[in-house]
Amino acid sequence: MKQYKSIDYRYKCYPRFQDTDAYGIVHHSKYLCYAEEAKMAFMSDDRYFGVQVIDEECKFVVRDASLRYIKSVRYKSKEPIDVRLHFRIEDEIRVVFKFEMFYMDQKVCTGRTEHLAVDKDGKLKLSIPEGLRNKYLCLIEKGENV
Amino acid sequence: MKQYKSIDYRYKCYPRFQDTDAYGIVHHSKYLCYAEEAKMAFMSDDRYFGVQVIDEECKFVVRDASLRYIKSVRYKSKEPIDVRLHFRIEDEIRVVFKFEMFYMDQKVCTGRTEHLAVDKDGKLKLSIPEGLRNKYLCLIEKGENV
Amino acid sequence: MKQYKSIDYRYKCYPRFQDTDAYGIVHHSKYLCYAEEAKMAFMSDDRYFGVQVIDEECKFVVRDASLRYIKSVRYKSKEPIDVRLHFRIEDEIRVVFKFEMFYMDQKVCTGRTEHLAVDKDGKLKLSIPEGLRNKYLCLIEKGENV
Amino acid sequence: MKQYKSIDYRYKCYPRFQDTDAYGIVHHSKYLCYAEEAKMAFMSDDRYFGVQVIDEECKFVVRDASLRYIKSVRYKSKEPIDVRLHFRIEDEIRVVFKFEMFYMDQKVCTGRTEHLAVDKDGKLKLSIPEGLRNKYLCLIEKGENV
Repeated sequence: MKQYKSIDYRYKCYPRFQDTDAYGIVHHSKYLCYAEEAKMAFMSDDRYFGVQVIDEECKFVVRDASLRYIKSVRYKSKEPIDVRLHFRIEDEIRVVFKFEMFYMDQKVCTGRTEHLAVDKDGKLKLSIPEGLRNKYLCLIEKGENV
Repeated sequence: MKQYKSIDYRYKCYPRFQDTDAYGIVHHSKYLCYAEEAKMAFMSDDRYFGVQVIDEECKFVVRDASLRYIKSVRYKSKEPIDVRLHFRIEDEIRVVFKFEMFYMDQKVCTGRTEHLAVDKDGKLKLSIPEGLRNKYLCLIEKGENV
Repeated sequence: MKQYKSIDYRYKCYPRFQDTDAYGIVHHSKYLCYAEEAKMAFMSDDRYFGVQVIDEECKFVVRDASLRYIKSVRYKSKEPIDVRLHFRIEDEIRVVFKFEMFYMDQKVCTGRTEHLAVDKDGKLKLSIPEGLRNKYLCLIEKGENV
Repeated sequence: MKQYKSIDYRYKCYPRFQDTDAYGIVHHSKYLCYAEEAKMAFMSDDRYFGVQVIDEECKFVVRDASLRYIKSVRYKSKEPIDVRLHFRIEDEIRVVFKFEMFYMDQKVCTGRTEHLAVDKDGKLKLSIPEGLRNKYLCLIEKGENV
């Protein structure tokens, strides 16, 4: 099967004080939210897909997620997490994001999420919406950030 | 205007480790969530209103909220917050909850939220749904927990 | 008693998808987090107080909070909440923030939080730390944003 | 290397309305919090380890997490998530939890988290605290839930 290239994207996400826990560090579940913000910024970015992030007809639900935590993050007001995202469509049906996160120039986390499209009743779609797929092929052909 | 009595309700809500922040205590925004859980348990309780908590046709959005924080809560696994709720309909249109919260027998917080009914387009309803109002009058007439 | 003037501050806070709830809008508890982010940005801003936001010796815990919700916020990737903050020290002992929040040029929320200083054991301090108080007097004398 | 057996544990965790998102389902990051609550209940349970969940001298930070999402969860007031936890110490140094989650008798999620012990300065400990290790060996010898 043809293995497509990935599209890279960078996004800055600001931790909040509420993201910390009584260990004094950002709670481990919050990295999924930082990754999500980066993904939504990417998907809605007009230079890429420019889609509505909340589209009733086609939602991309998370099927799998994995995270490796490398370094704890201590909250400092207004220091961003630098999220580096790599988007790919696999097997015509799965949307895959890999990511690394940096905080004050140190790698703090890496991970991967896999998404499947569902319709408004929550039923799995058998393929990625065609418009999205074509746009993707078009983008990687142009070598946009690949 | 006739001033109706309130209906009292008690609910136990379990703080989560994620509810804490880097100050080592439960984050002040979380008490609104504990109050909400108590409110939803009350509204869906068959002994009282028995309504669906997520009803597209009639949602009770928060209009006002106020909280007084009396004592910080340090997380201990499986120690509940004891929420004491007082429900009332005011002026035929506003749903009002007052509450006190206790943790390990100490009062930690008091507060009040006021709710208005909106329809599925988010438009304000001019009155509380009649079924709810009648049930309320019926409950306070019976002296249920009043 | 002398009534001091307030210092104004503006801060942009980005809602996250996770801040929404099944009503399709930003959860009402999250506005306390947006206000907190604005407060922490203000307190740590070198043009104002430039203090560490997590200082074990002196934490400003929330004593009271009140919020009025004016309009629901529907999440759109990368649309910020514009927080307008008004800081004041009252009665030499209470730190008070008032705020209004705007989203896509519409006022969505107003509120007020009151804070007291506690030491590292959580004991109430009888007065605002002197350094902070002097800096405040200095700032309002200069008419900084007053 | 000797491969130890796992200890099984069950815990009920109640989703909150705030855990939902604008897709109408429990947000995917929240399953890490449900797993955490189950882990903390287990570790603090006197029938097992009975340790303080927030111990400055020895914190178990998450090193790796992976999740498979099987079915979306729609919030219903007071319906619990049934978390089935499997605890194991691997290679004398890593604490590993595997889990399955059920909601209204349907499997909704499976996952695994791996933890390492750090001291109060956040430095990695080279081994599991001896008391914990001995207790573990004692428990699996007795066949407690193995």
